[in-house]
Amino acid sequence: MFRKEIKVLDCTIRDGGLINDHYFDDKFVREIYKAVSLAGVDYMEIGYRCSKNIMSPDKFGKWKFCEESVIKKAIDGIKSNTKLSVMVDVGRVEERDILAAEKSVVDMIRVATYVKDVDKAIDLANQALDKGYEATINIMAISRANDNELDEALAQLEAETKVSAVYIVDSFGALYSESVTHLVEKYKKFLKTKEVGIHAHNNQQLGYANTIQGIIDGCNFVDATVYGIGRAAGNCPLELVMGFLKNPKFDLRPILDVITKEVVPLREKIEWGYILPYAITGMFNEHPRAAMALRKTKDKDNYRDFFESLSAMEVE
Amino acid sequence: MFRKEIKVLDCTIRDGGLINDHYFDDKFVREIYKAVSLAGVDYMEIGYRCSKNIMSPDKFGKWKFCEESVIKKAIDGIKSNTKLSVMVDVGRVEERDILAAEKSVVDMIRVATYVKDVDKAIDLANQALDKGYEATINIMAISRANDNELDEALAQLEAETKVSAVYIVDSFGALYSESVTHLVEKYKKFLKTKEVGIHAHNNQQLGYANTIQGIIDGCNFVDATVYGIGRAAGNCPLELVMGFLKNPKFDLRPILDVITKEVVPLREKIEWGYILPYAITGMFNEHPRAAMALRKTKDKDNYRDFFESLSAMEVE
Repeated sequence: MFRKEIKVLDCTIRDGGLINDHYFDDKFVREIYKAVSLAGVDYMEIGYRCSKNIMSPDKFGKWKFCEESVIKKAIDGIKSNTKLSVMVDVGRVEERDILAAEKSVVDMIRVATYVKDVDKAIDLANQALDKGYEATINIMAISRANDNELDEALAQLEAETKVSAVYIVDSFGALYSESVTHLVEKYKKFLKTKEVGIHAHNNQQLGYANTIQGIIDGCNFVDATVYGIGRAAGNCPLELVMGFLKNPKFDLRPILDVITKEVVPLREKIEWGYILPYAITGMFNEHPRAAMALRKTKDKDNYRDFFESLSAMEVE
Repeated sequence: MFRKEIKVLDCTIRDGGLINDHYFDDKFVREIYKAVSLAGVDYMEIGYRCSKNIMSPDKFGKWKFCEESVIKKAIDGIKSNTKLSVMVDVGRVEERDILAAEKSVVDMIRVATYVKDVDKAIDLANQALDKGYEATINIMAISRANDNELDEALAQLEAETKVSAVYIVDSFGALYSESVTHLVEKYKKFLKTKEVGIHAHNNQQLGYANTIQGIIDGCNFVDATVYGIGRAAGNCPLELVMGFLKNPKFDLRPILDVITKEVVPLREKIEWGYILPYAITGMFNEHPRAAMALRKTKDKDNYRDFFESLSAMEVE
C-alpha cells in the first residue's frame, strides 16, 4: 500500500506510559526518538500533557506531564524531521499548560475524548489550533459508542473545528475488520474536510489487521508503537505497519535495532501483548482494567474464572 | 458469525509437533483431546502419519507416526464427539500405513502438498477415500504459488478427487487479507463440489485476522491451535476463533482451562509466537527455517542483520 497522504504516528512513549505510570528514563525516550527519526516516521507522541495541579507528580513519571524543558532535554542534539505530539485529556489540562506553538517544541496536540465529551474536546482542540498547533481529536472506546450519538458528534466535529484528523480509537481491542470498515465509512461521510485516523489495540491479535483495514478503507493517520508496547495487550506494532507501507521514505532497520537494544529487554521487566485476560475483555467489549488488576494477583492465569466473572456481569 | 457448515479443526498436536519434533507426552495429548472434545471442536488432528521406513523413529516422537495403538492409548476412556484426523505428506507414507477406515480410530486423512505435487496428493487422497476415510488436500506455501499453476491444480482437484475440502495454507504467514479474499474467490470458482479450508500462520500477527477473513469470504473448514502453538510464529489461536464463532455448540471454557494448566507452562519451555525474525520472514514471503535456525544461536535477537541477510538474498 502506498498513498503519500498517509502519516504514521509512533505513540510508544505515550501509550507505553500507561503500563509504567510514565516512568521511562531519558535514555529510553532518546533511543526511541532517534529510531523513529531515522526510520522516517512522521510523528512521535512523547507523552501526555497533564496539569500538575490536577494529576499528582508524586504518582506519575514525567511523561505524564511533558513539560517543555523535559522534552527539550530528551531530544537535545538528535537530528530529526519527525514532528512531536502530546496527548491531552479533557479535564486534565489547564490552558496555561499550553504555550504558544512558536515557543514550544511540540508540533501537534491530540485531544483524547469519549463521545459524550466531544464539546469539551472541540473547545480544547480549538484552543490548541488558536495557539498555532496542529491538532487531532481521538474518540476513545469507539466500540461502545451509540450510533446516533456518534453521528451527532461527527457532524459537530465537522462543523465546529478545523483539526487535521479525527481518530477511531479501539480502546478495548474489540473491533473486527467489518466494524472498522463501517466506522471509516461513517467518519468519511461526516468529515468532508478532515482525515480519519486509526488507533487499534491488540487484545484479540487484531491491532495490526484492523490498522491495515483502516488504511485500505482510507485512514490517513495511523498510530502504532514499537514492538506493540502499550497498555494491557498493547497496540498495533510499528514494525509491521512499516513492513506493509511501501512508501520509500520509511526505513524499518532503525526500528529493528531499537527493539533489539531497548524494547526486548524492557519486555522482560514489564508485561504487554497477547495475554488471555486481555483477549477476554476484548471479546466482551470491556475496558481491560479488570484484566490488568487480575494480572497483579496470584490468580493471574486463572482464565476460566475471569471469563465466568465477565459472563456473569453480562447477564446481571 | 454463525454458519452451521463451518467445521473447526484443532491441530495443536500436529502443528505444535513441528517445534518439539513431535515429542509430546501422553498426558499433554490427552488433556488437549479432553479440552477440544468438551469445547465441541469438530476435528482434532493428532499428528502426522509417516512411515517408519521413511522417517526414523530415533529422530522423532510418536506423534510423527501416529500408530493406531498409540492414538488408542492416548484417547482411551475419554468421551468425545470430536473426530480425529492425521496429516500425511506426499512421499512420506506408504499404502500399508493406512488401514481400512473401519479398523482405524482415525476419521479423516489430510494430505499436505505443494502445488507441484498435486497429482501425487490426489492419488494419496483417493487411496484414503477408497479406504473409507474423509479426506482433504492442503496446499502449502500458497503465497508462493504461481497463478496459472494454481488454476490448473484447482481444476484438476475438482475433476479428479472427491475430498471434502481443499485448503489454503499460508505456511509463511505472508498473506494479507486482500490476498485471502482473492484466493478464496479463486478456490470457489474452481471447486464447485468442495469446501474451502484455511490454515493461517501468525508471523505478522495476521493468523486470526486472515482466518476471520477466510470465514467471511466463505471458508467452511478452519484450522486453529490452542494458544496459537505451532512452528515458528505459530497459528491462528483456537480460543480467538471460538470467541468469533457464535455457534452455540462451542464452549470456550475448557480451552481456557487447558491453556492455564498445560499450554502456558509449556510456553515457558518451548518458544512460539510473535518473534521478530518470524515476522521478517513473513514480510519477505520466505519459509521460517532461516529464522528458526537464527533463534538457536547467540544472535537470536539481532534482527537488523537478519533483515539485511534476507534483503541481500532478494537482490542477488
